[in-house]
Amino acid sequence: MIEVSLAPDGTGYPLPTEVDNAKERETLLKITEEQRKLGRKIVVVQGLGFVGCVMAAVVADATDEDGNPYYYVHGHQRPSKRSYWKVPMINSGVPPVNSSDPEIPQIFKRTVIEKKNFRATSEEFVYSLADIVVVDIQLDATKPSFGEAEKGYCDLLAFREGIRTLGERIRPNCLVMVETTVPPGTCEKVVKPILEEEFTKRGIDIALHPPLIAHSYERVMPGANYVASIRDFWRVYSGVNPESAELCREFLSNVLNVKEYPLTQLDNTNASELAKTMENTYRAVNIALTLEWARYAEQIGVDLFKVREAIRKRKGTHDNMCRPSLGVGGYCLTKDPVLANWAMQTLFEINDFLEMAIRSVNINDTMPLHTIDIIKKEIPALRDVKVAVLGVSYLENVADTRHSPSKTLVEFLRKEFALVYTHDPYVEVWPELEDAKVEKDLNSVLPQADVVIFAVGHNQYKHLDPAEVVAMCQGTKPLIVDCSNFLNDEVINKYKQLGCKVRGVGKGHII
Amino acid sequence: MIEVSLAPDGTGYPLPTEVDNAKERETLLKITEEQRKLGRKIVVVQGLGFVGCVMAAVVADATDEDGNPYYYVHGHQRPSKRSYWKVPMINSGVPPVNSSDPEIPQIFKRTVIEKKNFRATSEEFVYSLADIVVVDIQLDATKPSFGEAEKGYCDLLAFREGIRTLGERIRPNCLVMVETTVPPGTCEKVVKPILEEEFTKRGIDIALHPPLIAHSYERVMPGANYVASIRDFWRVYSGVNPESAELCREFLSNVLNVKEYPLTQLDNTNASELAKTMENTYRAVNIALTLEWARYAEQIGVDLFKVREAIRKRKGTHDNMCRPSLGVGGYCLTKDPVLANWAMQTLFEINDFLEMAIRSVNINDTMPLHTIDIIKKEIPALRDVKVAVLGVSYLENVADTRHSPSKTLVEFLRKEFALVYTHDPYVEVWPELEDAKVEKDLNSVLPQADVVIFAVGHNQYKHLDPAEVVAMCQGTKPLIVDCSNFLNDEVINKYKQLGCKVRGVGKGHII
Repeated sequence: MIEVSLAPDGTGYPLPTEVDNAKERETLLKITEEQRKLGRKIVVVQGLGFVGCVMAAVVADATDEDGNPYYYVHGHQRPSKRSYWKVPMINSGVPPVNSSDPEIPQIFKRTVIEKKNFRATSEEFVYSLADIVVVDIQLDATKPSFGEAEKGYCDLLAFREGIRTLGERIRPNCLVMVETTVPPGTCEKVVKPILEEEFTKRGIDIALHPPLIAHSYERVMPGANYVASIRDFWRVYSGVNPESAELCREFLSNVLNVKEYPLTQLDNTNASELAKTMENTYRAVNIALTLEWARYAEQIGVDLFKVREAIRKRKGTHDNMCRPSLGVGGYCLTKDPVLANWAMQTLFEINDFLEMAIRSVNINDTMPLHTIDIIKKEIPALRDVKVAVLGVSYLENVADTRHSPSKTLVEFLRKEFALVYTHDPYVEVWPELEDAKVEKDLNSVLPQADVVIFAVGHNQYKHLDPAEVVAMCQGTKPLIVDCSNFLNDEVINKYKQLGCKVRGVGKGHII
Repeated sequence: MIEVSLAPDGTGYPLPTEVDNAKERETLLKITEEQRKLGRKIVVVQGLGFVGCVMAAVVADATDEDGNPYYYVHGHQRPSKRSYWKVPMINSGVPPVNSSDPEIPQIFKRTVIEKKNFRATSEEFVYSLADIVVVDIQLDATKPSFGEAEKGYCDLLAFREGIRTLGERIRPNCLVMVETTVPPGTCEKVVKPILEEEFTKRGIDIALHPPLIAHSYERVMPGANYVASIRDFWRVYSGVNPESAELCREFLSNVLNVKEYPLTQLDNTNASELAKTMENTYRAVNIALTLEWARYAEQIGVDLFKVREAIRKRKGTHDNMCRPSLGVGGYCLTKDPVLANWAMQTLFEINDFLEMAIRSVNINDTMPLHTIDIIKKEIPALRDVKVAVLGVSYLENVADTRHSPSKTLVEFLRKEFALVYTHDPYVEVWPELEDAKVEKDLNSVLPQADVVIFAVGHNQYKHLDPAEVVAMCQGTKPLIVDCSNFLNDEVINKYKQLGCKVRGVGKGHII
């Protein structure tokens, strides 16, 4: 039986056979030889996930002053049923990610089809051809208990395996640039020993050829500036030795818009690994702070969002202040504080605790329960109450559902035996909550709704006319809950005039 | 026996007698009559502390387009032994505050001596003459137990008395603008009921003449821009009713540089009171976060200050990130989160807890103990160890010692039986720790020092040559501790070459 990898659009791609792989190795050798003759260095991006696939395209897209590409890029993805489809999809010039950024389809078409210097493969042999490997293996934190991030840990098994593959394959002078957000200490305490061990096994003298390892983290944002958030943004980098740092600097300078966004070098890889996790913790902490003040504001007749705007007038000292919402999702703020705390206690064996960091994750992870509290103040028993949840992605105007707070909201509403209907104009599939049907038509979720939760601030919802919403509810006067401060006072008053109660996170002035 | 109020310079001022007061009332009446004839409104500033005395001068200094002052300003200070000296001092044209801001002596001289529209008094009769009263009564939080800010409370007794005085004296159409940082809810739940009660006692119909109360908080910073931080900065305001808000807006528009720094109105006084305490809590939380990461950085060879600079490149989202230090002092960040938490639980009777806010205060209040931990890693027993503490104010280049973290440092070093010597080029007296002699000459604190703590980043310390410091120590090779990241790597290396160990908060790379 041939195993098949299913793409999100339903197309099945058979996994490669040994015969295919042998042929692929020849192809890889041939391409690489040709490209070297053109004076191009060979970059392999390890892992074609959310960051890796776009980073690979950005690297391929980079050219010198005469418009010649610096690099030929091989994207490597393991031939798993879950992910192999990305290889043939990329090689047809189609991006394997859904995005509102118009640059995404353009850059894939340009590099894969036109410039022909970006190609995906599932054959590990490719690493033996690389001058530079960019590591973009996914790495998550596991939080075994809801609201107890202090118990969170990082399972490095797959990451270690990926690095071992490099150790077995790469040439000694190949730069390994880790781009994955890793627990601080990973380059020194995980990557370096594995590469040294494998080099030694292969008879490479690591005193003469110490592994070349650098760390440089991305600051990718999904949405309309996805590509620019990689290419046109500030970067931090570091190396385990001066040669690694210098090779990394040279690589990033070729690939990124360093004229407008100069690079920042840090002293060692611990420092840049720490920087990434601290950067996201900084925001996690700021968001956590807003929730307790939102609860406060709700009870004393204050609109916390107007308070926030008043405070943010102080540019440079107060304008980073975040806002409360349904909760915090995505791939960074939910896990990076946990990675840092776990690494401190485990990789470094330090007997300490990142209190502010971990408490902020706990507050943020449980934040969706506050929206349920708001509802229960009006409707104490939720059994058989029909609730329409508008928005299931983790951010407005994107399709990304990773660690979406709507998932927590739906799960806990179900625990109260509410009847939950979900809607999102962007989300095609919700892999984290597969039994939830995400509707595209409001008429599928609003009829007879007792509660309408504006969970995510998608633009489509902002333009909804209250009369239309209430009409679609077909007779109920639903409780309207605004989690994202996008119902302004005028819209709120319209809902009130239509007989609806309106409540909102941080919006005490409407009660 | 005549009671005398002693100024910081040692001059004694006898407190006024009943005869003096009777004469003063005549003077006040006469001045006010003359000033009204000039078309000026009468402003009384209640409380001539750190904010009040400079606010009074700023109000007096404000003129219309033709250069005519809008207001005549009476500053009122109660005739206590502790504070009365401010009245005669101001009336001689001399500011009652110590500051590096050159505008401070100028604005007092200009308004008191030249324009003659600012005068101080201790006679409460003055309130009956006011069109506007600006309330600048000092209000502190009491934290009965070190490191347990959750037990903190606000004693409103003196504040209530001050407001009652207004209720007994002011004309019904006088605007009371509260500028003091107060617990959220104070204008509605404290000021308004007291004024209503006193108005009613005086036979004023509060249905016809509801008290006019506004709230507008200052954002004063001590240091070189003291006056500008009042006059040339963004302001938030609110009123208990539309008339109060409008009078407040008009007043602030006359007095402040609202062209460059437009006003922000909030819906009600709860909102602006909340904004002030949240604004400072935001910073308290950000600082608290840095300490746990500083401890982390110290143990993994990372310079957290370089990490911070790398992160702060992300303008608008990450550039507010604070830095760790000896600790957090001053009048705002140490108390405002406590005021907010106490008000929530007490004035509003809400069963909740501002977790991030209160934990941050606890972390910040105990932060100086980390510097002692750093020392004890090198010198485990501190008995009879000679420690020179350089800097006792709460901020670099100012003389302000209020809630200085150096106080906690000195107290806990003494508990370990260390021999502590303190130095500060700005501080004349240290009222919070009167038995500590604050030296002005480094030769009085450095000889035979075993530990030199650069506690506060005063400019004078930045320019010290390591060879000179070590020479002044007369033979010891002291442990150098940098709490404020102002020894750069070059200076640190010089100390090392001279045989000193160097340690620092957040500076793991030097170990």
